[in-house]
Amino acid sequence: MEKFAESFEAYFEKNRKILEESLMSFLRDKVEAQEIDVAKYIIEGGKRLRGLLTLYFAELIGGSFKNALKAAVALELVHSCSLAIDDIIDLDTKRRGKDAAWVAKGLAKTVLVSNLLIPLAIKEVEYLGDDAVKNVIETWLKITKGEINDVFNSEATYLEIIEYKTSSLFQLSLILGAIAANRKDLIGISEKFGLYLGYLYQISDDLIDSKFYINSSEKPPFLSKMLKWLGINDNQNLNWEMLKEVVFKKLNFYYKKIVEMTSTLEDVNMATTFNQIAIYIVQKILSEGGLLWKPTL
Amino acid sequence: MEKFAESFEAYFEKNRKILEESLMSFLRDKVEAQEIDVAKYIIEGGKRLRGLLTLYFAELIGGSFKNALKAAVALELVHSCSLAIDDIIDLDTKRRGKDAAWVAKGLAKTVLVSNLLIPLAIKEVEYLGDDAVKNVIETWLKITKGEINDVFNSEATYLEIIEYKTSSLFQLSLILGAIAANRKDLIGISEKFGLYLGYLYQISDDLIDSKFYINSSEKPPFLSKMLKWLGINDNQNLNWEMLKEVVFKKLNFYYKKIVEMTSTLEDVNMATTFNQIAIYIVQKILSEGGLLWKPTL
Repeated sequence: MEKFAESFEAYFEKNRKILEESLMSFLRDKVEAQEIDVAKYIIEGGKRLRGLLTLYFAELIGGSFKNALKAAVALELVHSCSLAIDDIIDLDTKRRGKDAAWVAKGLAKTVLVSNLLIPLAIKEVEYLGDDAVKNVIETWLKITKGEINDVFNSEATYLEIIEYKTSSLFQLSLILGAIAANRKDLIGISEKFGLYLGYLYQISDDLIDSKFYINSSEKPPFLSKMLKWLGINDNQNLNWEMLKEVVFKKLNFYYKKIVEMTSTLEDVNMATTFNQIAIYIVQKILSEGGLLWKPTL
Repeated sequence: MEKFAESFEAYFEKNRKILEESLMSFLRDKVEAQEIDVAKYIIEGGKRLRGLLTLYFAELIGGSFKNALKAAVALELVHSCSLAIDDIIDLDTKRRGKDAAWVAKGLAKTVLVSNLLIPLAIKEVEYLGDDAVKNVIETWLKITKGEINDVFNSEATYLEIIEYKTSSLFQLSLILGAIAANRKDLIGISEKFGLYLGYLYQISDDLIDSKFYINSSEKPPFLSKMLKWLGINDNQNLNWEMLKEVVFKKLNFYYKKIVEMTSTLEDVNMATTFNQIAIYIVQKILSEGGLLWKPTL
């Protein structure tokens, strides 16, 4: 298990640069000189997890890296734009260790260049056919619905918001990987796995973020929603160790859900890989925040 | 001629209400309760020229009203969203006789609900097939490029900006009408006619708007671009009668371009109708500003 996780990480390290170069060559080819600086700013600095997942999954199921590369570019475009818009909505001023795009480049330019990159991302997957196009459109719609739920203070639960804003992109990563590998039969499993992967990713990410607010009286909306979901009374004194323990149990719960699901797969190699991807993603996010997590079954 | 223009207007009057009802039923079906108020605000109050053009053209060339109706809805969605975004970019506070959407409903909600309505508009034409979908995406991209040219103070000329921001939508109106009527052979002529129709519409609209700025020392960007295009020195005292005369000549020039183009069409009825649509649109816009224009050949 440990060994595989390493090779998975090695794959990501090895191919991140190629994906990065493809993103930059996309910009040079498809974006005009005047707006390239803003587009670059929106795109740069990501971990490229979603695009790399597309590439990895496509190769895992017999497809070629080359045929999945433009889809991976599209993934990163949609993801980056969703973050740029999200920062405007939440009035967040920092992103990926620098000023948010709307702070650095202005609101109008950020909105417009996002509005440019999204249809360009859709066109970028046209070579994979109409199903790919439809899935990108559907994902953009879902992300937007998630953001709308945020901004309208909807009754949507913590998990529902994750499903729209985070899982939708992991699902798209896998779906486009499946389409690029000519394995449309795997779209169903991609949707299921992507849903749980989004849960694991976002719960881990929010746990790390919650550390900053643990003693603050004013809780950001994501934390209030998360605490409500965890059944923790918002008004009681939050104890970091306690929160961590409860969240770790949830991570384990959803990891077990994935194992349950993958145990029904005929392809044992794919099942093991799915389990490993889940562990890798949780461990990667948590380790960046200085936390160590291991699943127990 | 006069008679036909009336019947064309009659068609618009008769069907505007049906299109309006379809827009509202679209909202009820596809937009959730929490954001319907913002969506309605963005959509309401338009002349519905573009959607009605789709319906009219589809019927003219043998298609059914029913089969073009959802395309007409999509047209009005894209158009309304482009105006809502445009007002944010230009910091315009008024639109269609009321506060601009971002002023009335807030910036974040306006951006997000536009981001919701665009993919919904794309999905709305899926019943017409992939060409329709691609054309809507392409149009959204063009409109955005036009707005980007505005905001980045690009070197784009007056006509280039019209082509991206205005003609693109008239072209889409006709293209979707052609597709809805199973007349893809008319896409080429739709593009040509839509381009000129956009010129005529926007030049007329800008002439009306320019009246407010005729004596102001600070000219808005659209007027500076227009004057440069007309070869009028920005610094000289603008004379309204002179400006009107120069613009009327341009309108006549592009009307003549349309007549030249339509005179090559085998279908004489379509040729006459195109000419009449052009006259109708210019006269409608100008008459709203109290001006009377007649083409001379």
